[in-house]
Amino acid sequence: MRKSKKLKSLVVVGLSVLLLTACGNLGSGGTTNTTTEKDSNSGYQTTGSTSGDNYAGVIVNGRYRTNKSRGVGIAQNSDNLYNLKSFESGLTEISKNVFSTKSYVFQEGQILSKSTVQKLLSRKSKSNKIGLNPVDNGKTDPNTRNPMYVQQIEEQDYMKEDGDGKLSLAGMTIGIGMNRKDYYQKEEYGATYTSTISKEEMVAQGKKAAQAVLERLRSTEKVPDNVPIVIAMYQQAENDSLAGGAFYAYTVVKSGDQISSWNNTDLATYVFPTASDDESPNSNDEAAFNSFKKRIQGFFPNLAGVTAQVQYKGSNLQGMKIKITTQFYSETEINSFAQYVTKAAKTYLPSDIPVEITILGSDGDMQALVSKDSGDDAYYMHVFSSY
Amino acid sequence: MRKSKKLKSLVVVGLSVLLLTACGNLGSGGTTNTTTEKDSNSGYQTTGSTSGDNYAGVIVNGRYRTNKSRGVGIAQNSDNLYNLKSFESGLTEISKNVFSTKSYVFQEGQILSKSTVQKLLSRKSKSNKIGLNPVDNGKTDPNTRNPMYVQQIEEQDYMKEDGDGKLSLAGMTIGIGMNRKDYYQKEEYGATYTSTISKEEMVAQGKKAAQAVLERLRSTEKVPDNVPIVIAMYQQAENDSLAGGAFYAYTVVKSGDQISSWNNTDLATYVFPTASDDESPNSNDEAAFNSFKKRIQGFFPNLAGVTAQVQYKGSNLQGMKIKITTQFYSETEINSFAQYVTKAAKTYLPSDIPVEITILGSDGDMQALVSKDSGDDAYYMHVFSSY
Repeated sequence: MRKSKKLKSLVVVGLSVLLLTACGNLGSGGTTNTTTEKDSNSGYQTTGSTSGDNYAGVIVNGRYRTNKSRGVGIAQNSDNLYNLKSFESGLTEISKNVFSTKSYVFQEGQILSKSTVQKLLSRKSKSNKIGLNPVDNGKTDPNTRNPMYVQQIEEQDYMKEDGDGKLSLAGMTIGIGMNRKDYYQKEEYGATYTSTISKEEMVAQGKKAAQAVLERLRSTEKVPDNVPIVIAMYQQAENDSLAGGAFYAYTVVKSGDQISSWNNTDLATYVFPTASDDESPNSNDEAAFNSFKKRIQGFFPNLAGVTAQVQYKGSNLQGMKIKITTQFYSETEINSFAQYVTKAAKTYLPSDIPVEITILGSDGDMQALVSKDSGDDAYYMHVFSSY
Repeated sequence: MRKSKKLKSLVVVGLSVLLLTACGNLGSGGTTNTTTEKDSNSGYQTTGSTSGDNYAGVIVNGRYRTNKSRGVGIAQNSDNLYNLKSFESGLTEISKNVFSTKSYVFQEGQILSKSTVQKLLSRKSKSNKIGLNPVDNGKTDPNTRNPMYVQQIEEQDYMKEDGDGKLSLAGMTIGIGMNRKDYYQKEEYGATYTSTISKEEMVAQGKKAAQAVLERLRSTEKVPDNVPIVIAMYQQAENDSLAGGAFYAYTVVKSGDQISSWNNTDLATYVFPTASDDESPNSNDEAAFNSFKKRIQGFFPNLAGVTAQVQYKGSNLQGMKIKITTQFYSETEINSFAQYVTKAAKTYLPSDIPVEITILGSDGDMQALVSKDSGDDAYYMHVFSSY
């Protein structure tokens, strides 16, 4: 519930920025080939990459080049903050399949403007011919109204340096977040109703939306015909989920404006412990999590809350993000607990996946981090303290 | 302000636990030599130590052995959460000078009971002969009333295993937190007034308090005469400080109940940027911090807040805890910023000290950690994301 409120304020901030900013539309001319000099005052720099697994990001004149549609990439009524975070980091992961972190530099989307993204996320209407969501049919019943299918859009640009030290657009990734549940109010501040969308309908509508965005991008001279465009489709989690959704498909359009085929990602997100009617792809993983949980939750007289977000590709576990909440009475308790958790993680959790364990106090403030990248043998432990 | 409220609720929770729990007083008999079996169900285990720099902590029957005075170790009206965290982690650091992390196991204090600690922190009175704070002289003027000198007390036990696999008390550390400012109300919920205590007065009162606690501990058979007791004196930071205070002196009493001499720690805590009338021991360090700050605070269109807690021993910098707060609009922004911060830290910050950099969103939630232990060459970067 707390998260939901935060998300709303995030969205509100984004929208208020929009109202204050005049922005060019898509296709308003100009070219993405930026004249730059590396590491000079007038030119571009990068954030540097801290590891081979991360993209370096574009900085111009000491300032980060932010997304042209910064803060408006999601439609209203999205109350699950995890969807937002999971969508954005998942999109970068999909991009890595196509654009190597070693050869490409990451740039926040510069083609789709704020107003274009807002129009795309809105309903089609007389005044909004490019809307990806269907016209308002005037109905308010969950089953007869036209639901909002498209919930989020994000553009990522992948740049390469040419011989003259100029950065030019060498690839693009578009993420599109699709609803299985569309939450709406019949009147402002009224009760929330839900239209449910079938998996088939979501996939079909997603393909239409992807095709429309692709055509729009290719129609502008900012996106040369031979620049590959990746379009990745994401299924939003329900609002009350303790995890975000997952990317279910993507396509790579090397040139032209037609999508010929889609790749299934086979990705799915689960929450441990699973509800009784839910089943994760590999019960051994949940058993391992349960052993870990059992070992640590009775450490203090007061029980600790332990949940995990897990991602699967088919039946293969891709990673775990575990959140532990308990009440601490001192820094020494935090330190001892973090060490115990580290030991238990090593004993019980799968060893070949990335694991992030965050330890929170009862006020929700982070007290310690225990984590491991997929290649690491040992866990890294950090206790947040103070001078 | 937010922190103050949290601290208050922490204290309140602590006190309510007290009211629900019956606890023996100091000197109520028994021995600390616990009959235990390592790694058996009836015996003790430890948390394990994640590195040679940390103590392993005592676990009994799968449960952490918490402090006997859990939650009551501080007097009321302490509004600076940093004092609490800094006191506890600083106390452990002082202990490491005397009790090696390789030979000793850490146990939360088991000698001083809740009610004893509460009495020690209260004013002396007819019904409380052991109070370390002076009698109430009935005055309410800041300059004529008797201020509260002693603000916090914490006991730490250091255990060794004997030949039979039993853990016994082999050392003790007592931390005593002293006020330079005593905040008080003349009536409940009334305005807050402040009595100021001179450095000399604080030191003198601290020595008296230390001697009284030492005698009390030695008078019980739970603390054998030959168990070394470390007493460490901490000066509380003012309530509006952005950092905690520092330990200014400690003594090691190998046996007996007399303190013969004190060691100055020469420790001091500062906040960067320093106020104009403040000066830190080495201006090069603050210049380095300012270069770092300047480099990163203009990364986004909105300015980032950058402050640091730093600790000195004489004129030698011991470590930095940097807090960066800015508004993020996406996970990719967080990722790019964290990489940039890592690069800037490597370029500008001193290389031979531990550095903790926490990156927070405008809602105060932690988004990324960049950190380095003193021996490390490279910084560790972790971005908190979601599935």
